[in-house]
Amino acid sequence: MKRIYLDYAAATPMSIEVLKAMEPYFSKKFYNPSATYLAARAVKQGINQARRQVAGLLGAKPAEITFTAGATEANNMAIQGIMRQFPNSELLVSSIEHESVIAPARLFKHREIPVTKKGLIDLAKLELMVGPQTVLVSVMLVNNELGTVQPLAEIAKILNKLSILRKANGNNRPLYLHTDAAQAANYLDLHVSRLGVDMMSLNGGKIYGPKQSGALYVKAGTQLRPLIVGGGQEQGLRSGTENTGAIMGFARALESAQEKRGAEAKRVAQMRESFEKQLLEQLPQAKINGAARHRAPHIISLSLSGQDNERLMMELDELGIECAVGSACSASRQEASHVLSAIGMSDKQARSTLRFSLGKHTTTAEIKKTTAELVRLISLK
Amino acid sequence: MKRIYLDYAAATPMSIEVLKAMEPYFSKKFYNPSATYLAARAVKQGINQARRQVAGLLGAKPAEITFTAGATEANNMAIQGIMRQFPNSELLVSSIEHESVIAPARLFKHREIPVTKKGLIDLAKLELMVGPQTVLVSVMLVNNELGTVQPLAEIAKILNKLSILRKANGNNRPLYLHTDAAQAANYLDLHVSRLGVDMMSLNGGKIYGPKQSGALYVKAGTQLRPLIVGGGQEQGLRSGTENTGAIMGFARALESAQEKRGAEAKRVAQMRESFEKQLLEQLPQAKINGAARHRAPHIISLSLSGQDNERLMMELDELGIECAVGSACSASRQEASHVLSAIGMSDKQARSTLRFSLGKHTTTAEIKKTTAELVRLISLK
Repeated sequence: MKRIYLDYAAATPMSIEVLKAMEPYFSKKFYNPSATYLAARAVKQGINQARRQVAGLLGAKPAEITFTAGATEANNMAIQGIMRQFPNSELLVSSIEHESVIAPARLFKHREIPVTKKGLIDLAKLELMVGPQTVLVSVMLVNNELGTVQPLAEIAKILNKLSILRKANGNNRPLYLHTDAAQAANYLDLHVSRLGVDMMSLNGGKIYGPKQSGALYVKAGTQLRPLIVGGGQEQGLRSGTENTGAIMGFARALESAQEKRGAEAKRVAQMRESFEKQLLEQLPQAKINGAARHRAPHIISLSLSGQDNERLMMELDELGIECAVGSACSASRQEASHVLSAIGMSDKQARSTLRFSLGKHTTTAEIKKTTAELVRLISLK
Repeated sequence: MKRIYLDYAAATPMSIEVLKAMEPYFSKKFYNPSATYLAARAVKQGINQARRQVAGLLGAKPAEITFTAGATEANNMAIQGIMRQFPNSELLVSSIEHESVIAPARLFKHREIPVTKKGLIDLAKLELMVGPQTVLVSVMLVNNELGTVQPLAEIAKILNKLSILRKANGNNRPLYLHTDAAQAANYLDLHVSRLGVDMMSLNGGKIYGPKQSGALYVKAGTQLRPLIVGGGQEQGLRSGTENTGAIMGFARALESAQEKRGAEAKRVAQMRESFEKQLLEQLPQAKINGAARHRAPHIISLSLSGQDNERLMMELDELGIECAVGSACSASRQEASHVLSAIGMSDKQARSTLRFSLGKHTTTAEIKKTTAELVRLISLK
């Protein structure tokens, strides 16, 4: 039985082109990039070339790119890095952030920015919440459970306006905007100046690249306290002998994702629309969560009133269809999703919700078969 | 020209068996280990199997093993993790620790334990230095520049004795022993109870495994404040989707290193002895640094009075021989080595010192050729 994988938001298979980009660095160009003989310097040049490539894709400068071991580390670097730099400050995070933003936020004075029932940031509330102590706002670009795309450029405008106002009032505390863009890179523009962000986290593991690869964009002039100190690699922001293969793989994966994103966004959105249409037509209890517009193409959050999502997930798994109950992280802890709770769903409704996420190997036939099996399973109850 | 690589202490080429252990996890078993369908659970089981394997090699329990992105991260986790857990405490580190121990130590109240001229911890001084506020002592197992092996079991005995004494005096602060064993795994026993350590850092990149793979052993009952928080992976100590391939590769590399260490230690030590003998016979200005006994077999620290190590390194490089000036990390910053300074060498002497480090592909012919070229180069000056 060929399995149908519909959990691309949790993990993606590494592509062949990525593996090819990594392979020379395993056993041949294995040198420590900090060593000073020629072969090692060549590896260092390779890393710097990858840095320029990633910077180019984001419209950033090479020195603004730090390679990390994944997006969780990047999110921690951004949040802990700013908050330790500015004691007696507070940060604001949206109420639907990933655990890797919420958990570091909880180490500091923080408040949560509410979202609407459609899973979008309430801009008016955000503007009211920014106080004189606020130094950082963190809002994810694409939500990992709902797929909703947050209006980062508008948030950036509000923060810029407030920043100018408070400087005029003699408050010189900076006001930074960070975004966790882990779910965005396959489908959306990541140009940092168009998004208006000061920091952005990226994850190779979600874009057909290596696991625990990624990057943190940090706008020039933004001072971070590093989490991991030592040899001073990555401009002092992330010490440790560079994971050259993973860096090369990540750069290749990001390039490929950004090259294909226009066509892929269209193709995947069509599949999602057809999927949702079929589900809503054939299952009267079905409801799609999150805004219909302002949504990345690959994520479908489906509530099936009266159903048990754990059981449905397992039954689908037996039929060869892999999907998720909430995010992979929260699933393993068996907590009801804080994201669904933030958009006003009860615990019971959250526990009737499945997440399907599509990707580059998803086909129309898979979507059809998934709908048919889901309809059949529910009709049996 | 076949190059002669003599910088195994800086980086090792990944072995074929390691790559084979990783490969299934790149594009096939790529699932997020926290997801709950069967294919993902199988990946989680694979990780737990690797954890049991690593634990077995160290004489530890599986729950005491945390997989990390390299030894720099592991060292930071150990030091920052304890010191943040116990504010108003101090730590002691040896004066010849790696940057990834010294830099996190500098974030807290700390003192440096001096070493003898032979590069070994002064046990009497250590005993006097431990104060009522000391909560952690960090001493590396094998020094990366000198190769000296520190008497960890004896240090552990001293700390145990002091710990009992201070408990009797009503001071209940714990007294932990951490070791950075990054340079030890290819040649030495790593049994944690025989070493007497509470925490130990390991590095895949030095044992023919993947770069930025590694582990931190943390003895049951030792509470660490995690550096990177989020999804709660690795028992809450290191959040982030697991780097399954790197974990598998690291476990395989450690197993292989520990299986072969007896034979390899003998083989490499013989080469080193012959290398040192030839150098001392043919170069009157040559001096080998570090204790003759209590030294790991693979590292040779060679001072050549009156010579410039940077220039010699480059000249050797042109002849196809790759060696190091100090450690790779410090080399890139062009500082004189703090390790050589700690054993009483002047800046000038340090700048006449080369490090050669041998490994599994090193041959007697390579050693002979290196000696001959070095003698020829120096005779030309």
